[in-house]
Amino acid sequence: MLPSIAWKNNKIVMIDQRKLPFREIYVAHSSYKQVAESIKCLLVRGAPAIGVAAAMGVALAARKASSKKWAGFIKEMKEALSVLRASRPTAVNLFWACDRMERVLLKNSFMPVADIKKILLREALLIEKEDLATNRKIADNGFKLFKKGSAIMTICNTGELATAGVGTAFGVLANLHKKGKKIKVLACETRPVLQGARLTAWELKRNNIPFKLITDNMAGFLMSRGFVDGVIAGADRITANGDTANKIGTYQLAILANHFKIPFYIAAPYSTVDLKMKRGSRIPIEERNPEEVTHIFGVPTAPAGIKVHNPAFDVTNSRLITGIITEKGVIRSPYIVNLKKAAAL
Amino acid sequence: MLPSIAWKNNKIVMIDQRKLPFREIYVAHSSYKQVAESIKCLLVRGAPAIGVAAAMGVALAARKASSKKWAGFIKEMKEALSVLRASRPTAVNLFWACDRMERVLLKNSFMPVADIKKILLREALLIEKEDLATNRKIADNGFKLFKKGSAIMTICNTGELATAGVGTAFGVLANLHKKGKKIKVLACETRPVLQGARLTAWELKRNNIPFKLITDNMAGFLMSRGFVDGVIAGADRITANGDTANKIGTYQLAILANHFKIPFYIAAPYSTVDLKMKRGSRIPIEERNPEEVTHIFGVPTAPAGIKVHNPAFDVTNSRLITGIITEKGVIRSPYIVNLKKAAAL
Repeated sequence: MLPSIAWKNNKIVMIDQRKLPFREIYVAHSSYKQVAESIKCLLVRGAPAIGVAAAMGVALAARKASSKKWAGFIKEMKEALSVLRASRPTAVNLFWACDRMERVLLKNSFMPVADIKKILLREALLIEKEDLATNRKIADNGFKLFKKGSAIMTICNTGELATAGVGTAFGVLANLHKKGKKIKVLACETRPVLQGARLTAWELKRNNIPFKLITDNMAGFLMSRGFVDGVIAGADRITANGDTANKIGTYQLAILANHFKIPFYIAAPYSTVDLKMKRGSRIPIEERNPEEVTHIFGVPTAPAGIKVHNPAFDVTNSRLITGIITEKGVIRSPYIVNLKKAAAL
Repeated sequence: MLPSIAWKNNKIVMIDQRKLPFREIYVAHSSYKQVAESIKCLLVRGAPAIGVAAAMGVALAARKASSKKWAGFIKEMKEALSVLRASRPTAVNLFWACDRMERVLLKNSFMPVADIKKILLREALLIEKEDLATNRKIADNGFKLFKKGSAIMTICNTGELATAGVGTAFGVLANLHKKGKKIKVLACETRPVLQGARLTAWELKRNNIPFKLITDNMAGFLMSRGFVDGVIAGADRITANGDTANKIGTYQLAILANHFKIPFYIAAPYSTVDLKMKRGSRIPIEERNPEEVTHIFGVPTAPAGIKVHNPAFDVTNSRLITGIITEKGVIRSPYIVNLKKAAAL
């Protein structure tokens, strides 16, 4: 297992995903502000991994808090929670992890501050452990959806780097491969940040899974020529009706898959489901730095001083989603009913 | 006007499009083999520009031919035609221009070789001049298709660089802008070779046309949010039934536009129509060097030693095309009838 995030010697050690696959650099984080900065700049990315990083960030904030009494401590913790929550807007796992840590914090307000610090660390490590178990269940639940020899297209990175375990969509692919289903993967490079070319290609290679890298504009053509049997993607937020925010480009893959009658699956932990949000049009879409579009690794790809769009995510209409693979099983339409039902499982 | 190709002092001078927008380097070509190489390596690209370059290449081959008599001359010319025709397989304009030059060559076989050389040069310069006039007509014919204030998406480069004139799809955009229709352009960067980011963005900027650059996977999302009123693309070959080969990514733009009920237009000279080919599935699709996908400007974007797909073109199903803007007017469905009819215009 790749240690993309680990709590070590009271620091959070994370691999710098911006430098992969060319350099493997591990960065030790000793403050929650540093963690928030690393989420913002994409040193760590992937919705579940961001959730784990944020939970550990809260534990780190607790550990470093100077107040010995509750009144001061809770003030310091509220500040830390607010800074961590502000790091990225779209993925709900960040908020889910912060909310969960906050609930544990408040529930234990009667305890000595020193004990609360330990409890928060225990909770963060539990979130990490749960994500690992959740990943395995998602991989198992997705197994039966793909025939032997399938060519499966994916986007962005949803593997060990994006989670605390084997991954979400990537976990399904790795499991299919490991169990001899002889799949082939088509990895979309995923401009502008190239998580597909840099991270997914790297993980596919490490796992000896046969694959081809493609640019994002090749998807439709390859589908039209029968080169694609299924599409699987991760998720950053799934609303009550099944609309799914994920890396920019996911929505158009779903439209293309639909056009060619190819199944399109989402794989995500149930913590990605945001039942409080009715539909996808309400999900805040992060607009990132224009330089991500006009440059690659700091090298300009376009004339200077031009304008761009740079939404980091899009929202796939749930009508286009064949099924949502979670640790609670494969959830299918009508999502408005079945996503809510799954909450009780 | 940008002199992307010019016959000067008995050489063909072309701007090196691989270096744009960062360096403006003009390369003088003094042999047809050098021209074929420049077509192959994308120093010159764009279907109509390739046609002009090939025609001038034939004229250059004639000029440089050593044989003073027909028997030797025609042998040398057949060799030159064959090398030029082999430079790129998809765009029909290359073959159209070579065929036309060959017809002129054969028709004048009774003339002294020295005169044939002059006639061939005159024909090449006529092809250049005609392309310029054709571009203007396309720009005019496309004018009425877009409302004031339209946001129009385009892919690849179809401007002055791709033609001998104002461009095809780009010519329509430039004309709309010049005549005060206050359009905004959304330029897809067009991986892997980035003709959108490098060339179209450069031409849009030079023409002061308001635009935003996007990565290719943003198209669907922007359409879903109402940011796109129309799509316009060029063409490398249009078969008898209207199926259209163009830069990879065009087909999926057409599917997305169709999904969102946004008009999708092709703009091309009628010389791009290949009535002898029945349908798009027969068009040879050029598969280019894998390094175009795994590298950008020679810098790796993915792990070493991996496999890729790299089709340079795709084929848009004619059902998805709202209209084909040519110098003979806007041709609409049923294409099988109307494309043939237009031949007589």
